Amino acid sequence: MAQTFLMKAKLAILGATGAVGQEFLTILDERGIQPGRLRLLASPRSAGSTCTYRGRELPVEEVGPNSFSGVDVALFSAGAAASRKWAPVAIDAGARVVDNSSAFRMDDDVPLVIPEINAAAIGGAPLIANPNCSTIIMNVAVWPLHRRHPVQRIVVSTYQAASGAGRRAMLELENQTRDVLDGKPVKPAVFPVRCAFNLFSHNTPIDEQGYNAEEAKMVHETRKIFGRPDMAITATCIRVPVLRAHSEAINLTFGEPVTAEEAREILSQAPGLRLMDDREGNRFPTPIDATGQDACLIGRIRQDASQPDGRGIDLFVCGDQLRKGAALNAVQIAEALMTE
Amino acid sequence: MAQTFLMKAKLAILGATGAVGQEFLTILDERGIQPGRLRLLASPRSAGSTCTYRGRELPVEEVGPNSFSGVDVALFSAGAAASRKWAPVAIDAGARVVDNSSAFRMDDDVPLVIPEINAAAIGGAPLIANPNCSTIIMNVAVWPLHRRHPVQRIVVSTYQAASGAGRRAMLELENQTRDVLDGKPVKPAVFPVRCAFNLFSHNTPIDEQGYNAEEAKMVHETRKIFGRPDMAITATCIRVPVLRAHSEAINLTFGEPVTAEEAREILSQAPGLRLMDDREGNRFPTPIDATGQDACLIGRIRQDASQPDGRGIDLFVCGDQLRKGAALNAVQIAEALMTE
Repeated sequence: MAQTFLMKAKLAILGATGAVGQEFLTILDERGIQPGRLRLLASPRSAGSTCTYRGRELPVEEVGPNSFSGVDVALFSAGAAASRKWAPVAIDAGARVVDNSSAFRMDDDVPLVIPEINAAAIGGAPLIANPNCSTIIMNVAVWPLHRRHPVQRIVVSTYQAASGAGRRAMLELENQTRDVLDGKPVKPAVFPVRCAFNLFSHNTPIDEQGYNAEEAKMVHETRKIFGRPDMAITATCIRVPVLRAHSEAINLTFGEPVTAEEAREILSQAPGLRLMDDREGNRFPTPIDATGQDACLIGRIRQDASQPDGRGIDLFVCGDQLRKGAALNAVQIAEALMTE
Repeated sequence: MAQTFLMKAKLAILGATGAVGQEFLTILDERGIQPGRLRLLASPRSAGSTCTYRGRELPVEEVGPNSFSGVDVALFSAGAAASRKWAPVAIDAGARVVDNSSAFRMDDDVPLVIPEINAAAIGGAPLIANPNCSTIIMNVAVWPLHRRHPVQRIVVSTYQAASGAGRRAMLELENQTRDVLDGKPVKPAVFPVRCAFNLFSHNTPIDEQGYNAEEAKMVHETRKIFGRPDMAITATCIRVPVLRAHSEAINLTFGEPVTAEEAREILSQAPGLRLMDDREGNRFPTPIDATGQDACLIGRIRQDASQPDGRGIDLFVCGDQLRKGAALNAVQIAEALMTE
C-alpha cells in the first residue's frame, strides 16, 4: 500500500554509486519505481558514470544547486559532510530528505526513525535521519520486548560486516582473503589492520570514556528512538570478516520477570523480524541467512541464567547491514512520508 | 625454572597428530625437551605415522595397555572418550595425566586448573583437567580483577576460531573460503553450516535452559576454578571465520566501584596477559596479534557506562586457542607437577 504511494513520488538518490546507493536501486526496483521518477546524484568524484536501472541506463549526475527541483523525496547516503552541505539545498527546493549519515541524527528537531518503532515521530519534518545500522538491527529485536516489559539495561556485543565501511571495504575483505590464502603479504588500505581471517575493535575514534563512536551511537541513538534518555546501555562493537550482515549478541535486563517463552512469542509476531530459533536442530541466525533479507533474523532466545529473578533474556540477531541496516529502513521512512 | 624440572620428565602425548597435539610438540621444543624423553601416542585411526621433532622422526604409536610404563606425565588431547578409556590405564602405570578433554573437568576429585589462578588446587592429584579454551582465555583476564574486587556477574560474548573444532575444521575454513571466492558451491562437512565469510552459534547441543554446551562449560568451569559455585555468568558462544585465536567481549559487575584506571593497572601486571589498549592509536587486541603468543592480549578496558555507580568494567581479550586455550595451559600444569 505504502509502495503504491511511493510509486507516485519523484525520487533522488545522493550517493547512488556507493554500497547503500546501489541497494537503494535494488529496493526501489522491487517497489516498482519507474526510471523516469528517479534521479541519481553523486559527488564530483563519482559523478559521470551510469547505473542500469530496470533496463535503462541512468546517468549519475554531479549534485548541484538545482539537483532537487521537483523532487519529492531525496535519499541521502554520501557521508556526513555531503549531507550537511546538500540537505538544506534539497529542503529549500521543496524535497523531504531521508538522511543515512550521522550528520543530523542527534539534532533535537530531527526525527530519528525506525518505522517499526517510531514512525509517528516523523510528523511534518522536512529532514528525517536514518539511524546507525547496528542501532537499527538491535532495536528491531529489543523494541517489541521493551514495549511490553520496559528494558532497564542492554549489554550488546556486535559482529559487524565489512559493508558498514562501504564498497571498497567489502572488496578489501575479498581481495585480502585471497592474498592470505595465496601466501601473499597483506596491505590493509580501507581498514587499519588486516581483516582477512581476523576481527578488530570498530575503528572509529575512542571518546574519553573509552567508547568508540559506533558504540556511542548505539547508546545515544537508542535512547532517542526509545524516548528514554536515561536508558542503561553498554556496547562493544567489533568488525568481523563477513561481507554484509551484522550480528549482535544482546543481553537484556527487565524491570520484571520475563520468560523465554513469552519473549519468543512476542518476537515471533514482531514486525521486521523472523524467528530462527531451532534448539533441537541447532539452527540459529547467521549473517549468510540474513543476507538479502528484509527481515532481521532472531534466535538464541533464552532466560539469562545469571539473573536468577527471571529478569534477564539473551538474544542473537542478524540483519542485512545494507538493507534493514541502511537502504531498506530509509525507503520505509520514505514510504511513511508519502502516506502522511 | 619449571622448564628445567620438565626436562627431566619422561612425557607421553596422546592425540599427537591433532591440532593441539602438534602444538604440544611446538611448546615442548621451546622448552628444550629431548626426543628421547617423549612418546607419541594416538588412536588406531591416526597411529602409524611419524612426527618430526627436533630433527628426529618420532613414531606415532597406537595407544595400548603398555603405552604409559615409565612415563611421568601424559598429556591427553584425543577427545573425551579416549580420555575416559586411557586415563585410568596411565594412572595405574604410575603416570600423572593432564587431560585436555571435558571428560573429568567437573568431577569433584579432579582439579580443574589454570596455573595463573589455582595451581595450588593440583595437590597430589593423579589426574588434572585442563579447562575449556574459552573458559581459560576469559579467566586469565577476569581473575586478576576478581582477586582484588570480587566479580558478582559476568556477561560474555565469544568470537571463537575454527581451531577449537580441530585441524579438519581449520582446513575446511580455508578451503571453503577459497571455494566461495571462486564462486564454487559450499559443502559444509566439519561444521554444520557455511563458515566462510559467516559466523554461527557454537554447534554444541542446547540444554533445557537454551544454553549450548560451550556456554555451559564457561559457566560451570569458571565457578569451579574460582571456587564460587554461585557466581552469576551468562555467555553467548559464536564461531567466527578466524583460524586459531579466540576473542571475547566481557562485561563485569563488581560488588564495589572499580575504575578503568585501576583495572588497567591490575591487568597490566597480571601473569599471562599483555596489555594492548591504545585508545589514541585505536589499536586493540586482534586474533592475528594473539596467534602464536603465550600471553592473552587485553584491551578495550573501560568503565561500563550502563552501571552508573562505577561497578561495571568492559574488556576485550584475544588468546591463541591452541596455546593458552589448550596446549600451553596443559604444559604449564605439567611444569607445576614436576616442581611439586
